[in-house]
Amino acid sequence: MREGTDQTPVAGVKNRSPLLCSYAEQYQRSKPFDGLTIGVCAPLTPHTGLFADVLATGGGEVLVTGEAGSTHADVVEWLRERPGVTPLAAAGMTADELADTRETVLEAEPDLLADDGAFLLSLVHDRFPEIARGVRGACEQTTGGITRLLAMDEQDALSFPVYDVNGTPMKQHFDNVHGTAESSLSAITSLTDTMIAGSVAVVAGYGHCGRGIARKLRALGARTVVTEVDPRKALEALADGHDVEPMADAVADADLVITATGRYQVLRREHVDTLADGVVVASIGSAIEIDDSALADEATSNTTEKPGVERYELPDGRRVTLLTEGKVVNLAAPGRSGNPSHVMDTTFAMMTRGLADLADSDLPPGLHPVPDHLDREVAHEKLSAMDVDIDQVTAAQRDYHDRWETHDSTKPDEQ
Amino acid sequence: MREGTDQTPVAGVKNRSPLLCSYAEQYQRSKPFDGLTIGVCAPLTPHTGLFADVLATGGGEVLVTGEAGSTHADVVEWLRERPGVTPLAAAGMTADELADTRETVLEAEPDLLADDGAFLLSLVHDRFPEIARGVRGACEQTTGGITRLLAMDEQDALSFPVYDVNGTPMKQHFDNVHGTAESSLSAITSLTDTMIAGSVAVVAGYGHCGRGIARKLRALGARTVVTEVDPRKALEALADGHDVEPMADAVADADLVITATGRYQVLRREHVDTLADGVVVASIGSAIEIDDSALADEATSNTTEKPGVERYELPDGRRVTLLTEGKVVNLAAPGRSGNPSHVMDTTFAMMTRGLADLADSDLPPGLHPVPDHLDREVAHEKLSAMDVDIDQVTAAQRDYHDRWETHDSTKPDEQ
Amino acid sequence: MREGTDQTPVAGVKNRSPLLCSYAEQYQRSKPFDGLTIGVCAPLTPHTGLFADVLATGGGEVLVTGEAGSTHADVVEWLRERPGVTPLAAAGMTADELADTRETVLEAEPDLLADDGAFLLSLVHDRFPEIARGVRGACEQTTGGITRLLAMDEQDALSFPVYDVNGTPMKQHFDNVHGTAESSLSAITSLTDTMIAGSVAVVAGYGHCGRGIARKLRALGARTVVTEVDPRKALEALADGHDVEPMADAVADADLVITATGRYQVLRREHVDTLADGVVVASIGSAIEIDDSALADEATSNTTEKPGVERYELPDGRRVTLLTEGKVVNLAAPGRSGNPSHVMDTTFAMMTRGLADLADSDLPPGLHPVPDHLDREVAHEKLSAMDVDIDQVTAAQRDYHDRWETHDSTKPDEQ
Amino acid sequence: MREGTDQTPVAGVKNRSPLLCSYAEQYQRSKPFDGLTIGVCAPLTPHTGLFADVLATGGGEVLVTGEAGSTHADVVEWLRERPGVTPLAAAGMTADELADTRETVLEAEPDLLADDGAFLLSLVHDRFPEIARGVRGACEQTTGGITRLLAMDEQDALSFPVYDVNGTPMKQHFDNVHGTAESSLSAITSLTDTMIAGSVAVVAGYGHCGRGIARKLRALGARTVVTEVDPRKALEALADGHDVEPMADAVADADLVITATGRYQVLRREHVDTLADGVVVASIGSAIEIDDSALADEATSNTTEKPGVERYELPDGRRVTLLTEGKVVNLAAPGRSGNPSHVMDTTFAMMTRGLADLADSDLPPGLHPVPDHLDREVAHEKLSAMDVDIDQVTAAQRDYHDRWETHDSTKPDEQ
Repeated sequence: MREGTDQTPVAGVKNRSPLLCSYAEQYQRSKPFDGLTIGVCAPLTPHTGLFADVLATGGGEVLVTGEAGSTHADVVEWLRERPGVTPLAAAGMTADELADTRETVLEAEPDLLADDGAFLLSLVHDRFPEIARGVRGACEQTTGGITRLLAMDEQDALSFPVYDVNGTPMKQHFDNVHGTAESSLSAITSLTDTMIAGSVAVVAGYGHCGRGIARKLRALGARTVVTEVDPRKALEALADGHDVEPMADAVADADLVITATGRYQVLRREHVDTLADGVVVASIGSAIEIDDSALADEATSNTTEKPGVERYELPDGRRVTLLTEGKVVNLAAPGRSGNPSHVMDTTFAMMTRGLADLADSDLPPGLHPVPDHLDREVAHEKLSAMDVDIDQVTAAQRDYHDRWETHDSTKPDEQ
Repeated sequence: MREGTDQTPVAGVKNRSPLLCSYAEQYQRSKPFDGLTIGVCAPLTPHTGLFADVLATGGGEVLVTGEAGSTHADVVEWLRERPGVTPLAAAGMTADELADTRETVLEAEPDLLADDGAFLLSLVHDRFPEIARGVRGACEQTTGGITRLLAMDEQDALSFPVYDVNGTPMKQHFDNVHGTAESSLSAITSLTDTMIAGSVAVVAGYGHCGRGIARKLRALGARTVVTEVDPRKALEALADGHDVEPMADAVADADLVITATGRYQVLRREHVDTLADGVVVASIGSAIEIDDSALADEATSNTTEKPGVERYELPDGRRVTLLTEGKVVNLAAPGRSGNPSHVMDTTFAMMTRGLADLADSDLPPGLHPVPDHLDREVAHEKLSAMDVDIDQVTAAQRDYHDRWETHDSTKPDEQ
Repeated sequence: MREGTDQTPVAGVKNRSPLLCSYAEQYQRSKPFDGLTIGVCAPLTPHTGLFADVLATGGGEVLVTGEAGSTHADVVEWLRERPGVTPLAAAGMTADELADTRETVLEAEPDLLADDGAFLLSLVHDRFPEIARGVRGACEQTTGGITRLLAMDEQDALSFPVYDVNGTPMKQHFDNVHGTAESSLSAITSLTDTMIAGSVAVVAGYGHCGRGIARKLRALGARTVVTEVDPRKALEALADGHDVEPMADAVADADLVITATGRYQVLRREHVDTLADGVVVASIGSAIEIDDSALADEATSNTTEKPGVERYELPDGRRVTLLTEGKVVNLAAPGRSGNPSHVMDTTFAMMTRGLADLADSDLPPGLHPVPDHLDREVAHEKLSAMDVDIDQVTAAQRDYHDRWETHDSTKPDEQ
Repeated sequence: MREGTDQTPVAGVKNRSPLLCSYAEQYQRSKPFDGLTIGVCAPLTPHTGLFADVLATGGGEVLVTGEAGSTHADVVEWLRERPGVTPLAAAGMTADELADTRETVLEAEPDLLADDGAFLLSLVHDRFPEIARGVRGACEQTTGGITRLLAMDEQDALSFPVYDVNGTPMKQHFDNVHGTAESSLSAITSLTDTMIAGSVAVVAGYGHCGRGIARKLRALGARTVVTEVDPRKALEALADGHDVEPMADAVADADLVITATGRYQVLRREHVDTLADGVVVASIGSAIEIDDSALADEATSNTTEKPGVERYELPDGRRVTLLTEGKVVNLAAPGRSGNPSHVMDTTFAMMTRGLADLADSDLPPGLHPVPDHLDREVAHEKLSAMDVDIDQVTAAQRDYHDRWETHDSTKPDEQ
């Protein structure tokens, strides 16, 4: 038996990304990005590499930068050889160096932007307002990014239309609920000796990511405690079988604390005092949620058990294990590249389709939901890639519901 | 030991409805409905009785009608004694008699309407356009009702503002997902000898009701198959661990078929041919989903096993058990009165609060989401009734997220 | 369309009992019980009726008695017409009258006994030792019965062999874990307005019944607390995601308390003081677990809300709802007849097969596990009735495992 | 802040092993192994290292060997410095070299043996019968080992008593069900890009390990298919909501195939033809379950994607990914050391306590269950380490159940 053929660093991901491959094929013919410059900023993993390549296949000049600690050297290498793509990030770059590459992206006066965390989007509006006025549109794919864009939109600060790709049902119920939770649990259990069954796990935030991981932890046998600031989500968490408590109470009995809020300093100095001995702490939402400096200040010692795992000892003897310095654990842990391809394919297909739509759109500036028909189109592609058939609304049904005047009032009682 | 004190027919429900009781107390003082006539149409259960009484306590003249097969005689009796309430439905009324009571409600020229299925709302617009112009606003609490109102809104047919109470997170994630599923499963297992563990259960529709019951069936050990017409919901169902198939395929192996779509004839003549022998069929969404006349036409015999349970025999020997003639099983089954008080309290509190807001609002005509602050207010009341504390957004957090320009780009990597 | 044909009271059950029907067919030919008298004592539901009839079909003279509160009048009527069966219980009989019927069964000098709760078995040994010496064997199908038989066996008190049908994997993992839990939850939610999602549910006992209901409650969204006296089961419950506490602590926050222990007074006077206001209390194990006299003594009033639902008021205002006077709720609630046919078929098939084996056996007196091959035979019948195929151990596999000397030590690492 | 203190390779494990630490303390005083030689064979992970050290603390002369591919060099190093312990395995040893170390262990004429897979136990009976006659007793902790010991016991081949530590409820419901499943899922998801939610996962074997992982896969959103040879386990799997099929059918649609049987060649040549394209295959039971030579024979190429991950390409283009060459994935994957400490602590505490009992026992040769009181003792220690209180059987309860003659027949109806 001969050895298998060599593989590019995106080969595995490509095999599991039927949608991106399908758009590559379509756009190679239709070239929706012909003559356009596209700036991409996202963790530079194989998935992002494939996405950039698909945009270039569609005719775009694509400039790609990344985020600290998640750039794959081999992907950069491979992108360098792809026509139409210029990788600007490199593995091991400092935050300042990466910030410089973002400026480089913007100085190229991009027509379209694909963002993950609103890093390019806040920068272009804050520092390059002239260039912002030339942008046709952008897509943003994260909860944290959308949190910022909502603040910007409320202040009427956006100069061009932005699609909220994070807000599509596809992203929420698929990528955020399942993908992030699975890859984060895999990373956490690989880094630590944690046993989930029988543990007490605290999840901060009951948005889609938090809900996803809280449900999976509970399904695996943890007693789960959710912390929230929104009373409606708190009620939802209670009805789903979680306990709900304020953070300061919740962490006192926890074996595991996971933040999934997209918010600033959700675990902070005031909570360090009540953290249970032996607790493991990680973020799956964003890198701003855990105030690691508070931990460092209070601790009497700090041991790196292995890359990604630090144990702080507090003056009263309590030990707290912090994973990946509070950066999101499914990207920042050694050897990890975020969510499984199965969901990244859908999310990046959504981004691709959204950018193609914005290339040629007259939407007003501001944050916009992804139009229903784009969302459905991508979902149909996915089902077809998975060989799954579904029903169609019949003419009789459409008719019945349109003629609201005559609906049969002898058939009452609804939920 | 002495016998306990006698009880009104809403006493039990009242004990478990802290929010409605709290609004009764507030509104007895503030009288938001003073001088207003309010038309209410909903299954006339103890929950609805209590709701009508709370509206009257707030100063309203309340006319209450019901739906076929779900009117509780003792509640009607009790309401007759309550000041400010006029019950128009009676137990055992035919559909035509009930239709007449709806006209009576509208002829009283109501200022506000509380609806469940958009029965009053479609009638007033279709047949009493003059009176419609005098209505200040309405609240609708069901998925089926909202489906109709969306059609009306698209056709610009609404003459006054309507709050989509069904669309609040409180209704969706609490009442629809949990309440309907629990009470429906209880009704189905009480009527039949079904064992859920190890069965194959088909759920038509993966909206909030369908999702709720499909997840609970799966959690109890069924192998679940979901049918959908929306590709995004189909993907969500797949990721949640259900199989997804077209209805005609799905019913061929089913032990249980449950419709939860709010749509017309989801189980229809074409599916009768493939229904598995021994299958039990029920609706938890609305009474229009199962075409029982198709079953009756094809069957060679029809046996009523007990009230609410009919067994049809098909020419080739297959037996199909239809529950409550296709009406929603958690209301139409003998002795049932819908969802548990724990969720009805929240939903009717939402309706009450919404009507109080509309009593004094200048919203334009059309279908409107319930304003965020009302929703949060009711949720906070509920948490406080349950003695649950949650966290608050801190000033530092608010500040961090508002100042989007300066967000720390050295802390990247988000979901 | 004509009306369906009339039905006997066991017709529905028969349709869902392929195994009993298959044994009826086999035993009609082989007549394993020819010339033998068989005493049966079990809740006289349609399942038990069918079972008795199958034994008679196999040639037995069958005397059937029942238990208080669960005798179906129509089943008794039907049995009266069956050749070879003599029903002795009647609906509405007092406990004393039923005790008399048990004596009548024993006075007939039965060759075989089929018991449910060891009522006949304790009586025959205690009061009819002569007759006991003539019994060839017996089968017992409940946890509570086996608890007593273990005590008897330890005291060498058994005069004939008894098969522990309750102990077969078929009964434990199928009937006890799923059947009892499902039918009990259905009964509890039908009797009360309980919402399981978001509730706090206490389950006393983590044997097969307790484990089954605790897992289902948790799967439906309850926060579950298990009480135990066996430290190993307590650890198992913890690892399964339940909280574990002593009863006195557990009941203080409970919405629902369910006993599933088979033990005497598991909820007793000392716990009445700490029971949470509004709690619902039920037994799914046996009628001896809840000390209802303690409740009655402490309460200032007792209201029957409806049949099967009593509300006690305690001096400090706390209200406690007791279901079916502490009798097992899936049998004692109005209109209930225990577990679904799907599992009763398997359990009664096991009883039937066990009695046929004992008719012609030379086992010594004492409590015996059901022989492996009988258990497997019934399981194979069940799979075949369900049209499920499974794999076979291959000759190569059998060979590999038999030749332990030479097993490949280069393939190590096992769980 | 200073750097934390240096750590021995078992330090982390020790922190999470309160039971072993407690036995170390007790046995340091009581010295139950004084003057005895103990042979240990198990994957030489930190847990095993700690276990060996505890035995030496109790006075034993401990000889430790390991299994191929799982020996931790730093643990060997550390053991070398511990008084009373002689490590014989070394990282990187071939299977033949390890086989030699097993002979060295036996040539030392051990008094007690602690085994994992029955490697020492089969060798000593097969090749060193003289030495076997001098052994006082042994403990075996794996399902695979017990499978062999059952074959040996049936053939009356055992010369000394062996405790079936694998059979204790503690091992089954805790270690096998939860520990193996969690660590295996973590290993599988770390090695591959698999997304469990929405996948089709086949689990071969519904013993404790298979049941554990099948339930967790299902809880995480997989559609699960179980294969079995025991009809009772097949029924249990069906009732738990899994599909049941023969292996040849099951693998045709699978995304993931996991063997958990302890049996020889469960996935073999005949199944290679039907394996779905893209499937990932792993064993969590033992290394003999997957016939990797069949795969190698049929494949046209074999690519090592990364250590532990091989992709085979079959002539018709199907690709099959085999993890860790079919060795158990939670031990053989790079950087893995088996189950979490939380369960290993309990299992090794059970082994320790069992050996102490056997040091001074007069049990006859053969395979024995661990005596109930030992099992309870270890469980009580664990609960106390976890600060969990449980109830006690009261005198009144004990009394009630002992006096079987007089049990209250007016309280009938049991499950």
